[in-house]
Amino acid sequence: MLRLTPPEYHTIENTSSFQANYGGGEANVAISLARFGHQAYFVSRLPDNQLGDSAIRYLKGYNVNTKYVDRGGTNIGIYFLEVGFGGRNSKVLYNRKYAAITSIKEDYFDFDEIFKESKWFHFSGITLALGDKVRNVLYKMLEYAHKHNVTVSFDCNYRKTLWSVEEAKEHYLKVLPYVDVLFASKFDAVKLFDVKTSSEDLGEVDEREVFKKLIDKSKVAKIFGTKRKIYTATDNELSAYCYTKDKCFTTEPTRFNIYDRIGGGDAFAAGIINCMIKYPNDIDYTLEFGLATSVLKHTLWGDAFMLSERDVKNYMKNNIASVNR
Amino acid sequence: MLRLTPPEYHTIENTSSFQANYGGGEANVAISLARFGHQAYFVSRLPDNQLGDSAIRYLKGYNVNTKYVDRGGTNIGIYFLEVGFGGRNSKVLYNRKYAAITSIKEDYFDFDEIFKESKWFHFSGITLALGDKVRNVLYKMLEYAHKHNVTVSFDCNYRKTLWSVEEAKEHYLKVLPYVDVLFASKFDAVKLFDVKTSSEDLGEVDEREVFKKLIDKSKVAKIFGTKRKIYTATDNELSAYCYTKDKCFTTEPTRFNIYDRIGGGDAFAAGIINCMIKYPNDIDYTLEFGLATSVLKHTLWGDAFMLSERDVKNYMKNNIASVNR
Amino acid sequence: MLRLTPPEYHTIENTSSFQANYGGGEANVAISLARFGHQAYFVSRLPDNQLGDSAIRYLKGYNVNTKYVDRGGTNIGIYFLEVGFGGRNSKVLYNRKYAAITSIKEDYFDFDEIFKESKWFHFSGITLALGDKVRNVLYKMLEYAHKHNVTVSFDCNYRKTLWSVEEAKEHYLKVLPYVDVLFASKFDAVKLFDVKTSSEDLGEVDEREVFKKLIDKSKVAKIFGTKRKIYTATDNELSAYCYTKDKCFTTEPTRFNIYDRIGGGDAFAAGIINCMIKYPNDIDYTLEFGLATSVLKHTLWGDAFMLSERDVKNYMKNNIASVNR
Amino acid sequence: MLRLTPPEYHTIENTSSFQANYGGGEANVAISLARFGHQAYFVSRLPDNQLGDSAIRYLKGYNVNTKYVDRGGTNIGIYFLEVGFGGRNSKVLYNRKYAAITSIKEDYFDFDEIFKESKWFHFSGITLALGDKVRNVLYKMLEYAHKHNVTVSFDCNYRKTLWSVEEAKEHYLKVLPYVDVLFASKFDAVKLFDVKTSSEDLGEVDEREVFKKLIDKSKVAKIFGTKRKIYTATDNELSAYCYTKDKCFTTEPTRFNIYDRIGGGDAFAAGIINCMIKYPNDIDYTLEFGLATSVLKHTLWGDAFMLSERDVKNYMKNNIASVNR
Amino acid sequence: MLRLTPPEYHTIENTSSFQANYGGGEANVAISLARFGHQAYFVSRLPDNQLGDSAIRYLKGYNVNTKYVDRGGTNIGIYFLEVGFGGRNSKVLYNRKYAAITSIKEDYFDFDEIFKESKWFHFSGITLALGDKVRNVLYKMLEYAHKHNVTVSFDCNYRKTLWSVEEAKEHYLKVLPYVDVLFASKFDAVKLFDVKTSSEDLGEVDEREVFKKLIDKSKVAKIFGTKRKIYTATDNELSAYCYTKDKCFTTEPTRFNIYDRIGGGDAFAAGIINCMIKYPNDIDYTLEFGLATSVLKHTLWGDAFMLSERDVKNYMKNNIASVNR
Amino acid sequence: MLRLTPPEYHTIENTSSFQANYGGGEANVAISLARFGHQAYFVSRLPDNQLGDSAIRYLKGYNVNTKYVDRGGTNIGIYFLEVGFGGRNSKVLYNRKYAAITSIKEDYFDFDEIFKESKWFHFSGITLALGDKVRNVLYKMLEYAHKHNVTVSFDCNYRKTLWSVEEAKEHYLKVLPYVDVLFASKFDAVKLFDVKTSSEDLGEVDEREVFKKLIDKSKVAKIFGTKRKIYTATDNELSAYCYTKDKCFTTEPTRFNIYDRIGGGDAFAAGIINCMIKYPNDIDYTLEFGLATSVLKHTLWGDAFMLSERDVKNYMKNNIASVNR
Repeated sequence: MLRLTPPEYHTIENTSSFQANYGGGEANVAISLARFGHQAYFVSRLPDNQLGDSAIRYLKGYNVNTKYVDRGGTNIGIYFLEVGFGGRNSKVLYNRKYAAITSIKEDYFDFDEIFKESKWFHFSGITLALGDKVRNVLYKMLEYAHKHNVTVSFDCNYRKTLWSVEEAKEHYLKVLPYVDVLFASKFDAVKLFDVKTSSEDLGEVDEREVFKKLIDKSKVAKIFGTKRKIYTATDNELSAYCYTKDKCFTTEPTRFNIYDRIGGGDAFAAGIINCMIKYPNDIDYTLEFGLATSVLKHTLWGDAFMLSERDVKNYMKNNIASVNR
Repeated sequence: MLRLTPPEYHTIENTSSFQANYGGGEANVAISLARFGHQAYFVSRLPDNQLGDSAIRYLKGYNVNTKYVDRGGTNIGIYFLEVGFGGRNSKVLYNRKYAAITSIKEDYFDFDEIFKESKWFHFSGITLALGDKVRNVLYKMLEYAHKHNVTVSFDCNYRKTLWSVEEAKEHYLKVLPYVDVLFASKFDAVKLFDVKTSSEDLGEVDEREVFKKLIDKSKVAKIFGTKRKIYTATDNELSAYCYTKDKCFTTEPTRFNIYDRIGGGDAFAAGIINCMIKYPNDIDYTLEFGLATSVLKHTLWGDAFMLSERDVKNYMKNNIASVNR
Repeated sequence: MLRLTPPEYHTIENTSSFQANYGGGEANVAISLARFGHQAYFVSRLPDNQLGDSAIRYLKGYNVNTKYVDRGGTNIGIYFLEVGFGGRNSKVLYNRKYAAITSIKEDYFDFDEIFKESKWFHFSGITLALGDKVRNVLYKMLEYAHKHNVTVSFDCNYRKTLWSVEEAKEHYLKVLPYVDVLFASKFDAVKLFDVKTSSEDLGEVDEREVFKKLIDKSKVAKIFGTKRKIYTATDNELSAYCYTKDKCFTTEPTRFNIYDRIGGGDAFAAGIINCMIKYPNDIDYTLEFGLATSVLKHTLWGDAFMLSERDVKNYMKNNIASVNR
Repeated sequence: MLRLTPPEYHTIENTSSFQANYGGGEANVAISLARFGHQAYFVSRLPDNQLGDSAIRYLKGYNVNTKYVDRGGTNIGIYFLEVGFGGRNSKVLYNRKYAAITSIKEDYFDFDEIFKESKWFHFSGITLALGDKVRNVLYKMLEYAHKHNVTVSFDCNYRKTLWSVEEAKEHYLKVLPYVDVLFASKFDAVKLFDVKTSSEDLGEVDEREVFKKLIDKSKVAKIFGTKRKIYTATDNELSAYCYTKDKCFTTEPTRFNIYDRIGGGDAFAAGIINCMIKYPNDIDYTLEFGLATSVLKHTLWGDAFMLSERDVKNYMKNNIASVNR
Repeated sequence: MLRLTPPEYHTIENTSSFQANYGGGEANVAISLARFGHQAYFVSRLPDNQLGDSAIRYLKGYNVNTKYVDRGGTNIGIYFLEVGFGGRNSKVLYNRKYAAITSIKEDYFDFDEIFKESKWFHFSGITLALGDKVRNVLYKMLEYAHKHNVTVSFDCNYRKTLWSVEEAKEHYLKVLPYVDVLFASKFDAVKLFDVKTSSEDLGEVDEREVFKKLIDKSKVAKIFGTKRKIYTATDNELSAYCYTKDKCFTTEPTRFNIYDRIGGGDAFAAGIINCMIKYPNDIDYTLEFGLATSVLKHTLWGDAFMLSERDVKNYMKNNIASVNR
Repeated sequence: MLRLTPPEYHTIENTSSFQANYGGGEANVAISLARFGHQAYFVSRLPDNQLGDSAIRYLKGYNVNTKYVDRGGTNIGIYFLEVGFGGRNSKVLYNRKYAAITSIKEDYFDFDEIFKESKWFHFSGITLALGDKVRNVLYKMLEYAHKHNVTVSFDCNYRKTLWSVEEAKEHYLKVLPYVDVLFASKFDAVKLFDVKTSSEDLGEVDEREVFKKLIDKSKVAKIFGTKRKIYTATDNELSAYCYTKDKCFTTEPTRFNIYDRIGGGDAFAAGIINCMIKYPNDIDYTLEFGLATSVLKHTLWGDAFMLSERDVKNYMKNNIASVNR
């Protein structure tokens, strides 16, 4: 997607220009994984015009392989981001209806070729919301991932402006059986994956119990997530958790300044996936790394985390910001 | 529409920001007429979000009355303009499918209220191409314009990227009976209004004869237009013509520098309409004024002519550019 | 007035450009009230050149009716704002002497027409300081407001760079008898409205007593104000109060980040006036709303509060800044 | 003066920022002469605030000695420049009334100190128009220049927006007896210096005769000037002339592109003065050099010529623009 | 190399920012060939820091394969470009001494791997000037190109600021025996390749004869070049020529506007190489295509030609610039 | 040095432009001292091109005398600054190898002339690291400073990216005998000046004892320094200390926001030197003033402190940031 942001905390109504960058959940994760040294591929559809070319160029520049990007359709997905400040909220305006991806066709792709050498497949709940054509391709991909023993991770990312819980539930439940690693909140477990709870009131429900039930009723091995406390638009606190069949891992909360909040969740997912591939047995480190990746993303302009693994490790060591010189 | 333009002659692929302004044929004409001192109203539909609000604010700031703008729909029409330089073409990428206006509804408007005090109604062939809902509203407006004896002007503005000649013809012929003042080329007359010619080759056809036939078969009283000679993207020449039932008026060609070509035709229409209202009997002056308005528009950033009548007259007098101080 | 601000916290000495916007106490209040859905009129005088035109366009775009703005004079009032950061103060340089408004003439205005349909008249102490011609028009307006039973609010806004307490006092006392709603501090009450106190030391004086005396000796029904605690140039705390004949209402202090401090007081006044018109009996809500409007203004570039009533209510409900998407 | 210019050929009405630079006739000449290696002093008055400081810093950075600049007053002279394009005029809006210089006082300066080591004194007709206080200081300076045998040059620079010919004439005649080198047009000679002509119609009057009469009735030794032919706002042609008691020197016309026209006359004056000091006997070279300096100024942003003597000579040799690498 | 350019025709002395892009002869050619659909590789050395990373990202984004770029050294080559306007020259300041490439080592590269699948090897005379280490790698590459029957093209690009004709000659002569396609002027042939002429005066020497001699004494099959006529910094004329053993091909001169002149020669080379690979027998078309590519490059910001083959063909067909919409 | 900074907290990899300013330890101190009213001279070497000219102009504009700046060499020292945000570090990339200053020659300077009227000579450890030629000039200057009884201050500023402790030590010890006022940390004292300590672990070593030993073994009269606590990249705390032969002075820590951290240490040195010259006996005030100067520098863009003594005093009095108007 093309993101258009008024410069210098201006509002959409008062700006005379927009800064342009490209983003989107899976693309952000792909870029971050490429930065961490993985071979990342992006599967999608982009219009066959200069805006599509720019998005391709952006991904290629960051080492993401784009050979599985179909080209066609007239509109690129656009969103306008009004960056909040202090007590003023950020606002997002979507202009994504009828974007090229919504007319993606499964015939275009050779799924065996895509998955035969792959290790990991990641997708998000936003993509799931983009209509039947997108979902058909997605279901095919989940089947082929399964066929080729590729690990599947799913970031729930439910957006109420895209569809209602009722509409979404059917599709969240449909993909669940394929998922090995899940990024989810208690809300997602109960409302989208239909985990039964003792109380109607989500606040009273025990997270531990909910996630255990979800793991029990699926092949999900690990559920990751973060909890955010918002002081102001530019001052938040995050902690991370991981639930497995029989354990619960958590980090201390860390408070930090925000320069650009978009993509914080994608950076967390990328940090987690990176460590699960490189250090599969160290969940504590994985959580700390995922959290640090997310925190650092919040300090960077643009949707994707664009620093290196060394930068994340530095931050984990110092937790402070001196001048490197 | 929202226009997004890479700054400093950058290409769409190489820009990291876009300058934003609002435009669109009828809006441009409305603004220019308001600058010339007329009370101008804009009838359309814009999304009920901050981008729609900005467009409204833009129009209001320039004295255009927006009380007949319905609000709703999710997308605003967007186009990306890559400004050409020298031998390099300007390029336009449309992201206008499913824009709010395409779901406009006739019930929203009280056409008697709109037309009962009006003098002039202007519309363009681009609007005609935006689908059945838009056309239904348009046809209603033409009927009410007729009922209230409002002069109707139509700028053909045929765009081949929006529809084929075959698709367009039906609708151009349908609006023709309502039109008093037409902005058209020989191509428009022959291909869209079905004027019969002696030769298949448009180049050989006599313009005079074609326009005479078109006037004869309709209630059109005057046909205006310009002829452009392109030296480079920033160096063009324009002349203007007006055909009436029995006469043909033309101007000398004038060569000029271009800063922003978009809206040159709308400025011409606005200049012509202004003079036809103020000095209805002086076609020579009207043509010169329309041409000067168009030339000056080419020197201004943005889609609309935003100088005053005094500036146009100054230019007509001097034809040169000294410093006013 | 035209405000010229170096971008990116640069100093006036080190900038190579200035961002331009229009502002001024009453104009800011008018815009905010228009945003809240009221019909707002601006009465003033602006030079008859492009800078005056721009100011008019700015006001019109925000729905402020400018038909009572006289045009003439050569200079527009200008101020240069150097935006402070952390421990570094903001600085304001005025270039407003001999601005167009200082030669405003009462003959130009038809005061009966202005006031006969009005509900509310608001003015500020800065305007009061702009010389005899401005004051003559102001006194006339107060008389006509009285004649037509229009509520009058006055924001003291005493500026020591414009005149001394001694010079100001005479005029503050002169307008007092017309005022229904007053925006004032203890300092204003004692120094400008001559309220007698038991102690020479303002710090020791009881605010409650002072405001009571002021209400007793005038027709003022309500006195509003805010108290500010400054941590840094970008980190302040505000609370609000309202005194009536027999009661005192206050809010909790709220701490917030600042992006642009100018116009915070005008936003407070606009928030208060909005609620006094819409919910005249709910002073607690009025105070909370006024305070929230002011806090949100501090997060917006430019002099005027330019969000909607819904944004204010959202902020009052959450007091935090999540992403709207 | 502070010059504020909308970027990218925007109009004053449509800009959201202004580029800032400092200028003014004598300051421009001083900077150019400093670039040519001369010790240049600037005598004036600037406000004692950050805007005045910036102007000082600007001059000092370019090697102009500012020890004779008094500080005081509240307003800095400001002008807004709307840069024309093609057929669209440049426009200048002055906000200079009551600028600091208009309250300059002769007591502040030690004129003997200023002139005792000086070789050349240059002033312009714009300064002459700034009121009695400025003129009093100017007349003093002319007396002391005379006393210390300093060459005096005067650039007529009559501006009809500052005063009428009738008002100006008295003062132009009053300074004439002190002038050695005059920058003037036929218009200046006839209208401001009262040279009698055979015909009422300036166009018919012989320039040669007029300048001869002017030289005869004064101590002026040389009259310099340029003639401009305007094709568009960015495409002009200039030639230069010099009249002495018995000779007339002229250059070929040269056509050139314009990036910023302001200061073209000041650059011409600086180029002439430079050569008259360095090569007093070579009027042909002097004229060519002055013309080349002026042409190159037109290609530079800002009011002053800021290249070196080597750049001027390069241009004179090649008259073309290759890449120096 | 990193190119730093003051925006908006500012001079290096007067700018407060620089626009950044990456360039360099061979990189520009590689990007253009990638745009034309060829698989292009870039062989060089870049510092192992973020500036090197950016250059890599830039190349990758444009589809240039960077696997043969060694990383190391501390400095990136930098040049400052002051863009000329009208009669004012462009200026280039090099900060390239000790750039990473100057310490390139031949051991790093596996030349058999590089050349075994290659079709074409292109290098320029600037690279030849960068010192012994660079030349050693270059000579190795020429040997391996020869061994693998790869066509070799050489763009003379002699720069007098890098070395004298005397220093350069030795190395130009040393690479000549490897070259199949040469980009050269008469000056290059005579001064660098030591072609003997009848006259001392280059102007009098017959180009045809000189190039014939050069072809006769080497294995060069084709010599390409352009001739430039400079009207102003932004208005030039180019024609192209090609000499073979027995024929001479030339184009008409074409006059055009310039937005950024840097890289015009590299675009010509890329256009020629593209056609020699795709249409090896059509020298006339090759010349026209090379010339059009170069002309269009002059209209684009940045060092490399970044349009498509379709854009070049469009330009060749129309030679004018209408709006594509 | 030329500093190039990506705007708006962008990374070096993601920026498309750099903001340019000039800096460098001694230059920063010189500018700040000039702002405080001292006559400051800068002794160095800059390339004889437009970048060198710009640096000169920058210094001159701020009243620093540049007559002792030699001109020559091709490269200007450049550093790229990536400004950190929140938890993300600032990063500095040096491109300073072979900068003009590294080929400075002692013959160029007349040291007697430089020092005969001087009061104070300040230099930093960064300069000491720039190679033998720089050090030779420096040692000469220290001798002449001694000869003319000029106070010498030295800011240790050890940078591990320039040299190792082992390499540096020799030279730090060599300059020590000339130093009267030292800016140093415990680390500097122990590692660079070889002060013996009871423990190997620096953390356990008593600062007081270390500095006492250093003072005892040299002619240093006062050792100044600051201690920084880093919360985030934009939120730090500083306190200052001064050790004399028998006393230790310290300030309270002050916490503050950071806009640009570079030059904070130079501002501290300038503040201290200013007070030691003006109020030599008031160490407490000197420390508070130095600290305040440093804190305010952190709120200013660019390397040098560019406010006035009045601004520092204001800050010391209020410690808060209201609007000056």
